[in-house]
Amino acid sequence: MEHTMSTPSALSIVVIGASGDLAVKKIFPALFALYCRKLLPESFTCHGFARSPMSDEQFRNLLKEHLTCRYTPGETACRQYMDVFLNRCFYTIGRYDSVDDYQNLKAAMEKHEPASMQVTRLFYFSIPPFLFGEVAKSLHAAKLSEDHPGKNACRIVVEKPFGRDRSSSDALTRELSRVFTEPQTYRIDHYLGKEVVQNLMVLRFANLIFEPLWNRNNIAHVHIYWSEDIGTEGRAGYFDKYGILRDVMQNHLLQMLALVAMEEPLNLNPESVRNEKVKVLRAISPVTLDDIVVGQYTAAEYQGKQHNGYLGEDGVPADSITPTYAAAVLKVHNRRWDGIPFLISAGKGLHDRKTEIHIAFRHVPANIFAASTSIPAANELLIRVQPDAGISLNIMTKVPGLRVALRETELNLSYAAAFTGEIPDAYESLLLDVIQGDKSLFIRADELEAAWDIFTPVLHDLESCTIPPQPYPFGGHGPKSALALAALHEITPL
Amino acid sequence: MEHTMSTPSALSIVVIGASGDLAVKKIFPALFALYCRKLLPESFTCHGFARSPMSDEQFRNLLKEHLTCRYTPGETACRQYMDVFLNRCFYTIGRYDSVDDYQNLKAAMEKHEPASMQVTRLFYFSIPPFLFGEVAKSLHAAKLSEDHPGKNACRIVVEKPFGRDRSSSDALTRELSRVFTEPQTYRIDHYLGKEVVQNLMVLRFANLIFEPLWNRNNIAHVHIYWSEDIGTEGRAGYFDKYGILRDVMQNHLLQMLALVAMEEPLNLNPESVRNEKVKVLRAISPVTLDDIVVGQYTAAEYQGKQHNGYLGEDGVPADSITPTYAAAVLKVHNRRWDGIPFLISAGKGLHDRKTEIHIAFRHVPANIFAASTSIPAANELLIRVQPDAGISLNIMTKVPGLRVALRETELNLSYAAAFTGEIPDAYESLLLDVIQGDKSLFIRADELEAAWDIFTPVLHDLESCTIPPQPYPFGGHGPKSALALAALHEITPL
Repeated sequence: MEHTMSTPSALSIVVIGASGDLAVKKIFPALFALYCRKLLPESFTCHGFARSPMSDEQFRNLLKEHLTCRYTPGETACRQYMDVFLNRCFYTIGRYDSVDDYQNLKAAMEKHEPASMQVTRLFYFSIPPFLFGEVAKSLHAAKLSEDHPGKNACRIVVEKPFGRDRSSSDALTRELSRVFTEPQTYRIDHYLGKEVVQNLMVLRFANLIFEPLWNRNNIAHVHIYWSEDIGTEGRAGYFDKYGILRDVMQNHLLQMLALVAMEEPLNLNPESVRNEKVKVLRAISPVTLDDIVVGQYTAAEYQGKQHNGYLGEDGVPADSITPTYAAAVLKVHNRRWDGIPFLISAGKGLHDRKTEIHIAFRHVPANIFAASTSIPAANELLIRVQPDAGISLNIMTKVPGLRVALRETELNLSYAAAFTGEIPDAYESLLLDVIQGDKSLFIRADELEAAWDIFTPVLHDLESCTIPPQPYPFGGHGPKSALALAALHEITPL
Repeated sequence: MEHTMSTPSALSIVVIGASGDLAVKKIFPALFALYCRKLLPESFTCHGFARSPMSDEQFRNLLKEHLTCRYTPGETACRQYMDVFLNRCFYTIGRYDSVDDYQNLKAAMEKHEPASMQVTRLFYFSIPPFLFGEVAKSLHAAKLSEDHPGKNACRIVVEKPFGRDRSSSDALTRELSRVFTEPQTYRIDHYLGKEVVQNLMVLRFANLIFEPLWNRNNIAHVHIYWSEDIGTEGRAGYFDKYGILRDVMQNHLLQMLALVAMEEPLNLNPESVRNEKVKVLRAISPVTLDDIVVGQYTAAEYQGKQHNGYLGEDGVPADSITPTYAAAVLKVHNRRWDGIPFLISAGKGLHDRKTEIHIAFRHVPANIFAASTSIPAANELLIRVQPDAGISLNIMTKVPGLRVALRETELNLSYAAAFTGEIPDAYESLLLDVIQGDKSLFIRADELEAAWDIFTPVLHDLESCTIPPQPYPFGGHGPKSALALAALHEITPL
């Protein structure tokens, strides 16, 4: 988010695991979008590295399918852009632990890197985390990992899951840190690249009106809600090892919470921003079994279709206790938030698909209009992350008419309505940040530690005590006990 | 605005000055609207009283032209409603100072008033204020002014101008009070009947989020703006005696200011609300010549048409110094508002026609996003009274895209879009209040005094020193010196 960062003069982008879905559907389309918007340096090449045998041509055809013309005017211009971009994409077949294969990759890279300028080498680890260690080691052995000032600078991008708990996360951090320094390491959380999430800091700190309200005196609770109306969609094998807590709560939802709850940073420098995020995460006490409800969806008919229960999905053990739903109440122990519950809930197989942040304000004390309304007057600021990104503020208004009757009305800002032009994908935004060396939106090691500290004890408790998740029917609202948890903290259900 | 008031069982409404524009175009249509919505008692009659000779039938035909079917479904139903309503309308010819003529009126009233119940008698003074005294005296002489518990209850409605300054206003109050008690007297300000104005208290006191912001710490200034893009439109003779300060500022604009600035009332009882309005008006120091700019429009072409200057209008003396424009800065000397300028400006012959209340918040101190925006980040709450009644809140948002660029966006609530159904006219709302005996939206005598105290000294100074108004071309933005006044108080022009 900082402006002092600059685009390097030459760039080699390597995607390790280039034949996977993330690479083909997200990373390369994002790189193409940046190219179309002239945000890549003159001199750049992209390299795919993976185990599948493929020629450059085959690789290009694979990529081509998912490139879109969003930023180019007209079909012809788009074709031209695609041709140039794809001609700069190359493929190297390789095993992840073979130094020889990385030597081949290096040769392919060097072939296109201008000898006269410093080249930024960006390695995107689009591979399962258990491979991070050996890939890092092999890159090191192939002499691809080190910075040589004036010649090349190396950056790696890694994506969750960063371990399964604090200790495995620490082990992963240590393994990577043997090869890459912390400044070289970009831990991506793609929710931080979403426009509305990026707007959270702007909303809070570039507007005067929110800060006086943004505290325990005025806010009753915060609810961060994440839902999908699908199951694991073929990813059950992966999902079952992690569960919803590790898959979205410890990272995406906690990151949003940090942006909602943190203090104003000194400035927009990445370290200043991350210092505040770490600080607020450290103010959150670890979740206990009393603070959490976990659930697992069961077979049900939803929207005219019969859906499997989680346990009936391919690759899920019959006795799996992996939660597909969780709701947890977090408390932030500082002067601003003491006593205010932050409810974060996330589930698959629910009745809707959305991500929202609800800032619920307190009721009006001794409301003189109490007799004119059947509902308690309470304001809410709603930040819709997806779909239909936007912001709305609920206020009580007099219904026009001859009686005094009050109604909740919405002051509304829809991104789609307010802003013309393309809203960039989170990966475009984040990849540009990596290229320009802006770390504001990436997770620092101590931030990752603090995030794990919040969930590690309860994850261990859930698993060591074999606590069964509450069943809930596919397509519903999640387990009933989540309502009880909310009620216990006086949180109105959505 | 209170609910404990009740509709009387029988009602006689008398409009003194029934052949005038206000009566025909506003009062009777409002009464008809209340009738259609079944808000008049079973037993009611309307009586017109004026000097023009007219039969009941002629009077009914005159009224009929301006009745509308807004609240009745279909043409046939509407005709039926009109027939019934008009059959209850009667006309009495009379001189305003003739007791005999009021005896005739009384006879006409009594003919239709049920002897068995208490009748509320409502006299609407739709006449120039210089007649108030003699009309009151004659009503008294005709024994129409007094309450007879169990038999009849009398109320009068009077409308501005309530005098030309504090002393003439006091004289008028005294004159009326010789005949009518303060509880019998309803001083109407039709701006208080407008929906958005009625919503001001709801907005402030039924929402939690405004109160913490509603003070000198967060609000930089308030601007209440009133404009018309027409001249005096045949009312120059009247207007020239009063001028814009007396015509709209001392009443409409000051009333809106009171609702914006007042403290929360104990409850919604009329006296509680009016106590707070009086209190805040008394906290405003009298306007001085340094705090005010006055102007007078001059001939100009506007929207393809040549418009007379004020001095060129029929009925305006060639040397008139009556202001058609004024801007004044008011200061509220209390803990909430000390030091915050309230700019109120009003003008005829301007480039637009609207009434708006702008609550401008302060700039963000030490804004960390200052580098990302070319405009200073400041929020504004805009209350649009007319046209297109609504509320909007300006906030700074990140423009979606790969750079951090901020833009002002609007959280918007349009009444027309948010509320289906008819928005009642201010007169419907206020007449119903009179009928039901709810005085919340009517000006109490001490409130009127406090309002005059703010403007009386400067009116005298302007007139005794013969201070010439600044000329401004018809269809423009008013005199330039108004900009200087705003700038002096660091108020951004609209």
